[in-house]
Amino acid sequence: MEHVKSRIWIEQDGEVLLGFGRIQLLKKIEETASISAAAKAMQMSYKKAWKLINAMNTAADQPLVITNTGGKDGGGTLLTDYGKLMITKFETLNSACEDFLNEKFKELNA
Amino acid sequence: MEHVKSRIWIEQDGEVLLGFGRIQLLKKIEETASISAAAKAMQMSYKKAWKLINAMNTAADQPLVITNTGGKDGGGTLLTDYGKLMITKFETLNSACEDFLNEKFKELNA
Repeated sequence: MEHVKSRIWIEQDGEVLLGFGRIQLLKKIEETASISAAAKAMQMSYKKAWKLINAMNTAADQPLVITNTGGKDGGGTLLTDYGKLMITKFETLNSACEDFLNEKFKELNA
Repeated sequence: MEHVKSRIWIEQDGEVLLGFGRIQLLKKIEETASISAAAKAMQMSYKKAWKLINAMNTAADQPLVITNTGGKDGGGTLLTDYGKLMITKFETLNSACEDFLNEKFKELNA
């Protein structure tokens, strides 16, 4: 049985802004409020996670991730509203793409 | 400016059957009627090209490529009708996918 598969990613000015791995990392940050916990969950070094976040924040029009240092509740790394919106956009696009391709492939094979 | 990009591939029983590189190789074989000329055009070793063709022919329900040995016009490597059909299907899917994603991304950003 043949299946069509796909990977999508979003580029900004020719640079990768968001792909599947980066989205997973953002979701782990949302879950854990911590870069090191998110990196661990992704089996990635802290340095690598930090670099990816920095690359995303630099490439995007607005930061996707912010780190609060200190304060009453201590520091923590959070997604911005823009970061959350980008996850939603990416996942909406990805699942729409999969549905579209499956449908189109069925048509082509009919 | 953000853009959405995609890569598609076709799997058969969980194994990659056709992806972007394999399609390029098939098209070069169609153009040159020769595995070695196609491999050269792809900057790929003959062995690698032969392995890819063998993997495709084995995974698919029908061969995509056949080699005629000898005969009045000498040997040559040709695409089967099935091979040609698969190129058309892949390219139709790929460009439909790109159009769909661009449209959908525009909608999401509106």
